[in-house]
Amino acid sequence: MNDKHNVTADRLRGFVATAFQACDMPERNAVRMAQLMVESDLGGQDGHGVFRLPMYIKRIRAGGMSVDPDISVISERTATALLDGGNGPGHLVMSRAAELAIEKAKTCGVAWVGARHSNHAGPAFLYARMPLEQDMIGLYVAVGSANHMPPWGGTDLLLSTNPISVAVPSNTQPDVVLDMATTVAAYGKVKTAADRGETMPEGWMIDKIGQPLTDPTRSSEGLLLPIGGPKGYGLSLIFGLLAGTLNGAAFGKDVVDFNADPKATTNTGHFVVALDIAAFADVETFKTQIDGIWGEMKSSALLPGVEDIRLPGERLAATTAKRNAGGIPIPQTLAKRLDALADELGIERL
Amino acid sequence: MNDKHNVTADRLRGFVATAFQACDMPERNAVRMAQLMVESDLGGQDGHGVFRLPMYIKRIRAGGMSVDPDISVISERTATALLDGGNGPGHLVMSRAAELAIEKAKTCGVAWVGARHSNHAGPAFLYARMPLEQDMIGLYVAVGSANHMPPWGGTDLLLSTNPISVAVPSNTQPDVVLDMATTVAAYGKVKTAADRGETMPEGWMIDKIGQPLTDPTRSSEGLLLPIGGPKGYGLSLIFGLLAGTLNGAAFGKDVVDFNADPKATTNTGHFVVALDIAAFADVETFKTQIDGIWGEMKSSALLPGVEDIRLPGERLAATTAKRNAGGIPIPQTLAKRLDALADELGIERL
Repeated sequence: MNDKHNVTADRLRGFVATAFQACDMPERNAVRMAQLMVESDLGGQDGHGVFRLPMYIKRIRAGGMSVDPDISVISERTATALLDGGNGPGHLVMSRAAELAIEKAKTCGVAWVGARHSNHAGPAFLYARMPLEQDMIGLYVAVGSANHMPPWGGTDLLLSTNPISVAVPSNTQPDVVLDMATTVAAYGKVKTAADRGETMPEGWMIDKIGQPLTDPTRSSEGLLLPIGGPKGYGLSLIFGLLAGTLNGAAFGKDVVDFNADPKATTNTGHFVVALDIAAFADVETFKTQIDGIWGEMKSSALLPGVEDIRLPGERLAATTAKRNAGGIPIPQTLAKRLDALADELGIERL
Repeated sequence: MNDKHNVTADRLRGFVATAFQACDMPERNAVRMAQLMVESDLGGQDGHGVFRLPMYIKRIRAGGMSVDPDISVISERTATALLDGGNGPGHLVMSRAAELAIEKAKTCGVAWVGARHSNHAGPAFLYARMPLEQDMIGLYVAVGSANHMPPWGGTDLLLSTNPISVAVPSNTQPDVVLDMATTVAAYGKVKTAADRGETMPEGWMIDKIGQPLTDPTRSSEGLLLPIGGPKGYGLSLIFGLLAGTLNGAAFGKDVVDFNADPKATTNTGHFVVALDIAAFADVETFKTQIDGIWGEMKSSALLPGVEDIRLPGERLAATTAKRNAGGIPIPQTLAKRLDALADELGIERL
């Protein structure tokens, strides 16, 4: 177990799948969950991968999430569908949604598939990236799994980080993959700062009288700030309407804190859009143009002190390559939690 | 002419249509342009309405924009289309795009229509709002008409404000209409500050060594800042790829400054999405839920010093109502420009 702090993706996938199967999740679901969760860790989204396993298992064992959900189509048009996720893990629901969107976009050119009665699905990029293999552009939006933001000017926690991801394939360069919260900092970054005993920079949170809040251990008293002030608030609100309300999923005061209550049904909403490049352009030409844009941005003159222009998706690609080669780092605190989980489930430790 | 500084919408529409017709624009196009441009002014988007008329006319007379464009479908699927705007005004091109998207969404549930060889189209909300009459949600994104932003960390002006608008219909409350640039301030606000002799707040622009730039008369040396730092940069970039590159329209270094060169073809790109609410939900129930969300946000406790929570679209609705009743204010500087334009065209002054 000397390599516990740097495990291979295969080994981590095996552990995750075994853990879910120990909770009676069917093998095909457990394998799919493991694949997607470890894809998060490979991509450097440490707060959205195996880090979440203990919480998912807790929810499953409390009866708050189904291991074998009946994911069904509630309504359908040629280019749209609304899925009921059967209270399954968001990964399974939104994988199905992306598959359906891709299938529909092959003929229609574009497809928009929403889902209700789903759960936390990990990082947004997973689903935005799925259409890329079919030479499509992907777009994904979710209602975040807990409210940590008020409407602009208010103090009631009615909004979440409601993230958006858009993925555009390139030819020889890394794919352009934007994956962002509508808040200055995702709540996971606040929790990470607390774990590490760090102070938060001003601008991440304020308290309920509008003063900067920089102590992450006081985050429960704080309000996340949106990007661009009222603009980020507007984005979070409108994404919530599209991913939540339109799908008959929770939004606003109906959002259940995923971490606080493992039994309550979250009714998480998300949507995914697949857009077929060939409906607009020659695919190879387009992908080569994306390479060109990559080079164009990279070759900009720099501000003093800046070493490099980055494109969205650049770090994701680099981290994935690095961790596929050298393994995924598991911090000591997480390793202990996973050991305890393994013991609890009666499975072999990681 | 005592009421020159507060004109009725009808009168302003008449003036705009007459001005375009004096430049040989066919009547139906001129009337449509007038209707949409004055809709901008009614909604309070003063920088995007009749304010732009002298520039549009200048471009038309220089041969840089067609008054009777052949707007054609280049490629089409059941739920998508790509239009060639025939170098016509963006208003005409994107009206057509929205009509086509709405028509397609009626059967498909969603439709995405992009355009190339278009021009500046006024404020984004005009096109996002068009699907609302058919009980659809609208979404519109454009490549901005001049680059004023570098990639994050750089100084080359390769990106524009690339705005997004999303419109969601309500029942008894104003429709929710988000209309935002991906920059902290739209460039028009910088120009307005310069006109008024005002100083800009820190955070709007920096100079090429990264220092805050607050003198708007020096804006040509400055760089607009994106909302949320790298996030707004990412949004601007990805919207540019979707609205520009995918449509075969200009993006990055190919963007022509609409104001600087009235002869060069801008090849402006935009796209509009229509999403049929009935494909997902009962329309009346949904619109009533939007009313409910409105009330929920409004009833939040407030930060000290804040009087009211606003929703996106609230000011638009209020300003439209006010100006429909009491007329549209025309500042003295604009009135002089319009008088000069009228004289130049040999038409009656406003």
